[in-house]
Amino acid sequence: MNAKEYISTNSERFLEELFSLIRIPSISAHSDKKDEMIRCAEQWKKLLLEAGVDKAEVMPTEGNPVVFAEKHVADGLPTILVYGHYDVMPVEPLELWESEPFEPEIRNGYIFARGADDDKGQSFIHAKAFEYLNRNEKLKCNVKFLIEGEEEVGSKNLEAFCVANKELLKSDTILVSDTSMLGMDTPSVTTGLRGLAYWQIEVTACNRDLHSGLYGGAVANPIMELSKILAQLIDEDGHITIPHFYDDVDEVSKEERELMAQTPFDLDAYKKSIGLKDIHGEKGYSTLKRTGIRPALDICGIWGGYTGEGSKTVLPAKAFAKLSSRLVPHQDYNKIKDLVINHIKSIAPAYIDVDVQWLHGAASYVCPIDLPAYRAAEKAYQKVFGKRPLPFRSGGSIGVIPVFEKVLGVKPILMGFGLETDAIHSPNENFNLELFYKGIETVIEFYNEFGK
Amino acid sequence: MNAKEYISTNSERFLEELFSLIRIPSISAHSDKKDEMIRCAEQWKKLLLEAGVDKAEVMPTEGNPVVFAEKHVADGLPTILVYGHYDVMPVEPLELWESEPFEPEIRNGYIFARGADDDKGQSFIHAKAFEYLNRNEKLKCNVKFLIEGEEEVGSKNLEAFCVANKELLKSDTILVSDTSMLGMDTPSVTTGLRGLAYWQIEVTACNRDLHSGLYGGAVANPIMELSKILAQLIDEDGHITIPHFYDDVDEVSKEERELMAQTPFDLDAYKKSIGLKDIHGEKGYSTLKRTGIRPALDICGIWGGYTGEGSKTVLPAKAFAKLSSRLVPHQDYNKIKDLVINHIKSIAPAYIDVDVQWLHGAASYVCPIDLPAYRAAEKAYQKVFGKRPLPFRSGGSIGVIPVFEKVLGVKPILMGFGLETDAIHSPNENFNLELFYKGIETVIEFYNEFGK
Repeated sequence: MNAKEYISTNSERFLEELFSLIRIPSISAHSDKKDEMIRCAEQWKKLLLEAGVDKAEVMPTEGNPVVFAEKHVADGLPTILVYGHYDVMPVEPLELWESEPFEPEIRNGYIFARGADDDKGQSFIHAKAFEYLNRNEKLKCNVKFLIEGEEEVGSKNLEAFCVANKELLKSDTILVSDTSMLGMDTPSVTTGLRGLAYWQIEVTACNRDLHSGLYGGAVANPIMELSKILAQLIDEDGHITIPHFYDDVDEVSKEERELMAQTPFDLDAYKKSIGLKDIHGEKGYSTLKRTGIRPALDICGIWGGYTGEGSKTVLPAKAFAKLSSRLVPHQDYNKIKDLVINHIKSIAPAYIDVDVQWLHGAASYVCPIDLPAYRAAEKAYQKVFGKRPLPFRSGGSIGVIPVFEKVLGVKPILMGFGLETDAIHSPNENFNLELFYKGIETVIEFYNEFGK
Repeated sequence: MNAKEYISTNSERFLEELFSLIRIPSISAHSDKKDEMIRCAEQWKKLLLEAGVDKAEVMPTEGNPVVFAEKHVADGLPTILVYGHYDVMPVEPLELWESEPFEPEIRNGYIFARGADDDKGQSFIHAKAFEYLNRNEKLKCNVKFLIEGEEEVGSKNLEAFCVANKELLKSDTILVSDTSMLGMDTPSVTTGLRGLAYWQIEVTACNRDLHSGLYGGAVANPIMELSKILAQLIDEDGHITIPHFYDDVDEVSKEERELMAQTPFDLDAYKKSIGLKDIHGEKGYSTLKRTGIRPALDICGIWGGYTGEGSKTVLPAKAFAKLSSRLVPHQDYNKIKDLVINHIKSIAPAYIDVDVQWLHGAASYVCPIDLPAYRAAEKAYQKVFGKRPLPFRSGGSIGVIPVFEKVLGVKPILMGFGLETDAIHSPNENFNLELFYKGIETVIEFYNEFGK
């Protein structure tokens, strides 16, 4: 049976198995979800064993456990390490979901659910590609699976796990499906990822909420002070104002920037797809350059005072914000971490207390396109999609990718099958069914190429 | 039986009756509390009938009902109209309360509960003062009670009620206890109140929450845009930057400002009582002037994006803020309303949508100290506290006070028995028990003076 036939014959079972993963609300940001994390890891183990691995284990870390599985075909064959993650993002605001986030629903050829794409749907592609090759005795590579449970909170414990299990994780290439293609008919392989830094700011003006009439005008308003601090961090040209922030930014060559400019990009469609009145960003760069090769600073959340219905005349004691930065090569998140903390403290007025807490960081990543594994991926996409995939520098971050390079000495290949419209991290996350099945085919072709 | 003896004999019953009002969570800002509002109005009616009024009614308005009660002693006697409100502020953040907000608890001589001071505790003083005079046949005034249920949301329907019931509400003076004294041993009568204007701002950048990696740097961040708008509203000198905002501000005479400067004020104690590192406000004005004679602009609440535990790398679609302004004579809140809306819209960048919703407004108030009713209040405090009360301009607003003046043609007298430390509108609101009982005595003395 060829791959297409096998996928078609088993398509409904594949979905049911994927849904069994999605139904487990494995939100790593919520510390009360520990049991769900373990349940999700155990379900992955079960599914990998059913797909035919020799052995599968749920291995402990300081945080959520890691699922490791292995199929050893023969010595001398190249080894593929598949990486994915079973944890998902929080689902708030719940009221914007059209169906239950953890009860997958198929509408118009898309699976709607938290994790449908990121990363349960995408990583499960590899389990089913492996299953086909294994059951049909076409496996010409040794295979290892590494599925972690803390990607959405910065893969805090995976580096230590990799260091402690270097031999176990030894491979010739690492495959990761946790990114997007440029479009349904524009396959692409992600060759760059931005790094990440994440802080929480807490501004305290006084020791309790005050009556805004009795105190308003005489006591600092922590929301106003926080707003003033945040507003100073980016200037009118969209430049980040933190001193030395851009010092280590890799200035991409003119030639490479010109190549990037050939990436198909429809500004009107982009604006329409997310309901923008207009784009907005750093002066002197296009949208793709702004997300691909330039760092960004974003406020991911803010809160303080009365946020309920109607009016409450309160002068709050505190205000909070979550601040994150996307970093590019060769910005060091540890250096950026301190630059931001010190700068915010330096601009904070003396009459308030400002605390900046460090939440996490991730390094950036670049993959050269002349790598053998990259060439194999290129051919696999070409076969299934009929088009040579474009190399693409994404604005996103996958914390562990640069860690693999650093600890295991292998450059991961980012074979994504998502779409930018999949609303990952947002309400109504979805995953295109056709791309789910084409993804399985593409990964099968990768094995065939890489095992030659 | 004299007043002191009567109060002492009945002190526990007085408290139990007050607690029966406090236990009803009559939060007017929450539209799902309609039943509680009616329950609270009915309880007031019951308590006033028990205190001896001829008749008491729960009268409908477009919003929460009004309690009206009356005792006609004799034609030709002066008539006192007592105003209070049975609604209270929301209680969030709940976790900061040391006891249940709607289960009053007495600790160290203070009643702790939402409404203990504002305004269940303070307005109930009048019910008990009336009860004493009535039961002991010492009442030399006719008395009317008007207890409303929408003070904390701007007394939206009370003006129409006053217009429709002018004859019913006819009086020679209006007594209100909804303000603070300068200190336990520094009695004061509030002679000025600031006006209020309240808006909600909604900034929309796109039609759904986005992945901050894929879009960060290329799409406007609504929290950043909101912060930049808010930060522009007050300059480095603490001046509000909205054009024409100060045009109608009453410049208080040098003489009056010098008198105000004699108000006892201990800056260190003030800072310590609310845990301030330092005061902060408009350049060129003292703390009491900043709250007494100058307008203020405050952000009462802000929210947007992810506000939960840990980190979520989201670029939110929307951000919101609640903005309020305290106004002084002779600023017109309808004029200020439009000035602020137009200014915010004018500084909003074209790539985002900014909506400014008007929530409510209230006029400011000034009471001259040579009014006969003011003189009667002065003598009453003098008798009970042994000191002549100081006239004081408060920073707070009581929306209906200027309405009474406008519609009923009577200047209300603000005989407050609260303290600035009562934490009204905040967690752990409290009311000093001694002042509760002294308040009853003082109001009894007012009747005696005013009925002479």
